[in-house]
Amino acid sequence: MAESIEIYIPPLDDGAMQMAAARQGRLTKPAGSLGRLEELSISLAGMTGRLDPPLANRIVFTLAADHGVALEGVSAYPREVTAQMVLNFLNGGAAINVLARQMNVRVVVADLGVDSDLPAHPDLRSLKVRRGTASITNGPAMSVREARRAIESGRRLVRDEVANGLDVALTGDMGIGNTTASAAVICALTELDSKDVVGRVVDDAGLDRKREAVRTAMRVNAALVATGPIEALAAVGGFEIAGLVGVILESAAARRPVVIDGFISGAAALVAASIAPAATGYMIASHRSMELGHGAVLRRLGLRPLLDLDLRLGEGTGAVLALPLLEAAVRTLNEMATFDEAGVSERDQEAAHNSSHN
Amino acid sequence: MAESIEIYIPPLDDGAMQMAAARQGRLTKPAGSLGRLEELSISLAGMTGRLDPPLANRIVFTLAADHGVALEGVSAYPREVTAQMVLNFLNGGAAINVLARQMNVRVVVADLGVDSDLPAHPDLRSLKVRRGTASITNGPAMSVREARRAIESGRRLVRDEVANGLDVALTGDMGIGNTTASAAVICALTELDSKDVVGRVVDDAGLDRKREAVRTAMRVNAALVATGPIEALAAVGGFEIAGLVGVILESAAARRPVVIDGFISGAAALVAASIAPAATGYMIASHRSMELGHGAVLRRLGLRPLLDLDLRLGEGTGAVLALPLLEAAVRTLNEMATFDEAGVSERDQEAAHNSSHN
Repeated sequence: MAESIEIYIPPLDDGAMQMAAARQGRLTKPAGSLGRLEELSISLAGMTGRLDPPLANRIVFTLAADHGVALEGVSAYPREVTAQMVLNFLNGGAAINVLARQMNVRVVVADLGVDSDLPAHPDLRSLKVRRGTASITNGPAMSVREARRAIESGRRLVRDEVANGLDVALTGDMGIGNTTASAAVICALTELDSKDVVGRVVDDAGLDRKREAVRTAMRVNAALVATGPIEALAAVGGFEIAGLVGVILESAAARRPVVIDGFISGAAALVAASIAPAATGYMIASHRSMELGHGAVLRRLGLRPLLDLDLRLGEGTGAVLALPLLEAAVRTLNEMATFDEAGVSERDQEAAHNSSHN
Repeated sequence: MAESIEIYIPPLDDGAMQMAAARQGRLTKPAGSLGRLEELSISLAGMTGRLDPPLANRIVFTLAADHGVALEGVSAYPREVTAQMVLNFLNGGAAINVLARQMNVRVVVADLGVDSDLPAHPDLRSLKVRRGTASITNGPAMSVREARRAIESGRRLVRDEVANGLDVALTGDMGIGNTTASAAVICALTELDSKDVVGRVVDDAGLDRKREAVRTAMRVNAALVATGPIEALAAVGGFEIAGLVGVILESAAARRPVVIDGFISGAAALVAASIAPAATGYMIASHRSMELGHGAVLRRLGLRPLLDLDLRLGEGTGAVLALPLLEAAVRTLNEMATFDEAGVSERDQEAAHNSSHN
């Protein structure tokens, strides 16, 4: 029987969503003219039960781990880059640090399974399950027990921060080889073929190796993959992916919006939605990644990304870049004048729905 | 003979662009993985001649005017809404005010031709050419002399702010009826048909009236439209559109990036590019508007918008929403560690171009 996770995810607050939608219609603009910002303001009201949810306490959870499959020529980078980039995060020199400083986001770096002894650091949470997964081309990446442990670690990260006043969670990742593991997770949960999920990476030879690795992983782990989402995650996933599943589930359980980064976070979101479908209501897709399989993930989750900037970096960079749009959505809903307040002639109600006020 | 405008727009700085591109390749990320942020950092270097152009002093120029054609049922709003919304801008209650506060942008509101006696206000520049254009369905909206005067007013607005340290200009508009005038300007400069430029607005009857108005305007003003871009602007444009042409041209002349808002600003950008093609190098398209003809305008200008959020409000809202991306582009280029600084293993140079570091 498939493993499950005991978690309660509250339904979205319909009343708050209706109030937000009604207020959008009274603001001094043609109804609908702020497009996706209006939708976002309504979604955020549904998640939080408030028309003015606070967004000040914002954290990107950048989870790192190594992958056995990285030794099989699927990445342009040597495996030690995972640890080197974690040190770069702690020194504040990576893209995620720069963008997080700009957007006033705290970066929580967590080691879920880096194959290196990382130094103690106030900004590093050590939650190492093991020093890297086994190669998914030979058997399961990890045991089901280890997958559960990594998910629990991700949940604990969020639980600790919720206790400290977390308003909005963002997901991020670092792990050489983790696009291959993510592609395998996506194939496992969607029955898509590896050729529709794995795009060009290193060169044509690298692409072939990566597709072949995913295909082999699916064959070798077929029985475990078919058992359920947690088993599939254990079979072909990674420790940071499992940790992100926990981050997403716990954010939803705490009624906190969770901004999903790109391809790797998308794979984790797919697992989270398979475990607890109600989690999808708390997800905000930040951007459309350049990775081939990302579109299919978003369609499966019913999410439309806010940004489309040809990003393919990970770390949480896309999620952080989307934050000003969340803030804009909440601010316009709450701070704009209504037609009444501003003494602006109300437009014809019938016409308003498809009008521009120009 | 067609009217022309004397203006010198400097070429983009190739050396700075090459330096920016080279630095992008040394930062701790796979080359190209920050996608459009990388392109943007290179464009901004070309415009300003600096890898770290300042962006702190940012102004949205929201230009307002009335339109004779608004009396012909092309808008869902009565014409007095233009003046009411200008007052709303001055009171800080409109969407542009809320977003500008969030993004630390100053809103300069200018009356280029509102059909109302607006009160004096420290944030309002009075540059009224006349109280609204004549209807473009009966003849020219304004004289060529008036068009030049409105363009000059827009240029002066920017010149004054450049003297005070303006770093980046944003365009915005307010004017009941101005999507009809903008559609006509676009038809005039692209030879597109009104059915491909004018989309559904009020209702099917309103749509027909709007298309018919544009078609009539093109027929009635055919000779003037064919003379040149300034004449076409005078024939079927509006005072705020003409003012925005000046804002765009002068920003380019001062080597300041100019963030173009949506459909109305796009029409102005098209006129500016027809007058001085080099101005295009200084334009940044903020978003893809819901207005039908906007895509054609962007293609004609060779611009790819940064955002796609189903906006159709104007005022400069889309331009302001894109600002954090400009800031992110400049910050990542300048603040990220290089591979050398971070001691991160350099990836295979050949492979790097198409790789993800995951």
